[in-house]
Amino acid sequence: MAEPVTLAIETTDGAARAGTLTTPHGAVATPAFMPVATQASVKALTGDEVRMLGAEMVLANTYHLLLRPGPDVMRALGGLHGFMRWPGPILTDSGGYQIYSLGHRVQVTDAAVTFRSHLDGSAHEISPERAVAVQEALGADIIMALDHLTAQPAAHADDAAALARTLQWAARCREAKRRGDQALFGIVQGGLHLDLRERAIESLEEIGFPGYGIGGLSVGESKAEMYAMLTRLHPLLPQHKPRYLMGVGAPEDLLEAIGSGVDLFDCVLPTRLARHGALFAPTGRVNIRKAAYRAQEAPVDPNCDCPACAHYSAAYLHHLCRSGELLYHRLATMHNLRFLFRLLAEARAAIQAQGFAAFKERFLAQYKPADEAVRVAQRRKWQARQQRKAD
Amino acid sequence: MAEPVTLAIETTDGAARAGTLTTPHGAVATPAFMPVATQASVKALTGDEVRMLGAEMVLANTYHLLLRPGPDVMRALGGLHGFMRWPGPILTDSGGYQIYSLGHRVQVTDAAVTFRSHLDGSAHEISPERAVAVQEALGADIIMALDHLTAQPAAHADDAAALARTLQWAARCREAKRRGDQALFGIVQGGLHLDLRERAIESLEEIGFPGYGIGGLSVGESKAEMYAMLTRLHPLLPQHKPRYLMGVGAPEDLLEAIGSGVDLFDCVLPTRLARHGALFAPTGRVNIRKAAYRAQEAPVDPNCDCPACAHYSAAYLHHLCRSGELLYHRLATMHNLRFLFRLLAEARAAIQAQGFAAFKERFLAQYKPADEAVRVAQRRKWQARQQRKAD
Repeated sequence: MAEPVTLAIETTDGAARAGTLTTPHGAVATPAFMPVATQASVKALTGDEVRMLGAEMVLANTYHLLLRPGPDVMRALGGLHGFMRWPGPILTDSGGYQIYSLGHRVQVTDAAVTFRSHLDGSAHEISPERAVAVQEALGADIIMALDHLTAQPAAHADDAAALARTLQWAARCREAKRRGDQALFGIVQGGLHLDLRERAIESLEEIGFPGYGIGGLSVGESKAEMYAMLTRLHPLLPQHKPRYLMGVGAPEDLLEAIGSGVDLFDCVLPTRLARHGALFAPTGRVNIRKAAYRAQEAPVDPNCDCPACAHYSAAYLHHLCRSGELLYHRLATMHNLRFLFRLLAEARAAIQAQGFAAFKERFLAQYKPADEAVRVAQRRKWQARQQRKAD
Repeated sequence: MAEPVTLAIETTDGAARAGTLTTPHGAVATPAFMPVATQASVKALTGDEVRMLGAEMVLANTYHLLLRPGPDVMRALGGLHGFMRWPGPILTDSGGYQIYSLGHRVQVTDAAVTFRSHLDGSAHEISPERAVAVQEALGADIIMALDHLTAQPAAHADDAAALARTLQWAARCREAKRRGDQALFGIVQGGLHLDLRERAIESLEEIGFPGYGIGGLSVGESKAEMYAMLTRLHPLLPQHKPRYLMGVGAPEDLLEAIGSGVDLFDCVLPTRLARHGALFAPTGRVNIRKAAYRAQEAPVDPNCDCPACAHYSAAYLHHLCRSGELLYHRLATMHNLRFLFRLLAEARAAIQAQGFAAFKERFLAQYKPADEAVRVAQRRKWQARQQRKAD
């Protein structure tokens, strides 16, 4: 049986690749960023808007949709494509990551993960088989194997044990899969240990997957460590299969990862930052809540072609943000997503013109990333908050 | 000097009138409903969407915009029209109603109203002169005189005293007005006392206004009392001037008031109800949170032409509402506003065809209004909450 999802690589430029991902619901120009429709909605936007901004594929979260509206309703309403009226390609995660970060009383055995819902405390169990069955009800074009996560950085023995379970689960997911119109991707784990990463890739290739998620990065390690690992993974991963770096969405990270041969990304960062007042600009993030924008008639970024910058002053966005207006969330989300889609389209064009390295250098010379210490502190705070909720 | 805002009545059908309101920023087919852009944004929607749904004129609240972003920023950015990029007609209220319902430590003397901001407790004063000056900075096409409100039902002596102050303030507002491209409307008060209402209209006509707000209704009295007063006001009000019934937006009230010769309406009801899960349908309000909608593939109203009903299942709206998704607010708001704009367009067509009474009867035979006891209890609760906040 022909694989339902394939990647045709059209140009390479160093390790970077420009290609086309073919899926049952259409083609995606790669490298590509998938905005996150956690609960079957990219927060604040309609599908038409998401597409108009430049998205060709979106991601939805199995954990959330399993709890609400549930796989039965979803199947009855035509799966995610019918439910959220998104006719294009969709990827669903396995639910694992959200179970670990949002669920209560999470317990992991070789058989399955059990947890209580963050919504109503109800008990649930996700085995590799059930992760596949739920994702078959959701009906995305790409579905993900259930994996076992460790908080990074972790000791070699911990990562090795988690990897062993991840590989066993990957085989069970492969075995459980029934639908022929979905591609099941394996997930490469192994933390910051290159030998484990090598073992992961070899074992997953033996089981046989048409594409790979790169997991266990952007989960607590430094950016330098993440970049170094991506560089090392490039020659180890099969060249002709799609590679999806999970949960990465900062502009500087996207360019580094594209430079190491990654094809697909997803992250809540652009949409979440937007809702909190942080907007992408060529020189870095700006905080629209600052008093400096109170009376600025010019848009946030005069060179931006998003609906917010095309129609509204920075002063209006500042006012809407400080007033807690719902329209703020839409305009800010559109701005940040458009920034990323434009960045990825430019990166793709640079690869096609064999000029990716220079493009990346030019962008990074201007763009000042958020301070890493602040970023790490924010993540720790978020994790602690999730932990408190779970207690 | 020619009045900047005039009403041409094209057809009458009993007391009901169909006409065209001409303003410096364009024409409005009447009877018309103005959605409320409290803080310079109709909650969750862009101006393009508001227009596409059928709005020709919007209302903004002087109290909120005085506090944030303030008249200076507003003036610098081209007034409300430039700030919110709404090129059509706008009406601003005087700020009085919100001061009484939201402000803290409100004190009223003949000179002015003093109050503290609900945002930061800062002290402010609004005199009739300042109410006009702030509204001149905001630059709406129609601005309203500052009035003194009483909670209804009130004793004759209380309403008489409030009316005396309202009339004195109306004259001062008229005197203070500088801009020639705005119309200042007087406000008819007097509670449920017909003799006071008569005195109000006579006195305001003596001062000279190009249009009238009908105040002090829908503020605690029964619907029957409101309808009876509207019937009595019709022959007393000058026939050729626009009449604006403030704060009324329930479908049944709109039809009753149109039947008594009212031309303009505003209310947060359709947008606020939407955000709380109550959607207008031909048979009355439906609660989209109900389990009955969990798997309903059909839209909320199969005959509705709003974007929510045209594109999405009731199940998806139910899911978005229960999940607290921002998109829910947009879709629900669009649905409720479209329902009202369609209702008013149909009412206008019925007047033009001399069939308004039959149209109204047909609509009300199908449409079951929300229970009045529930409505009154909700309003009392809301008022008590505002009062507690103010203490």
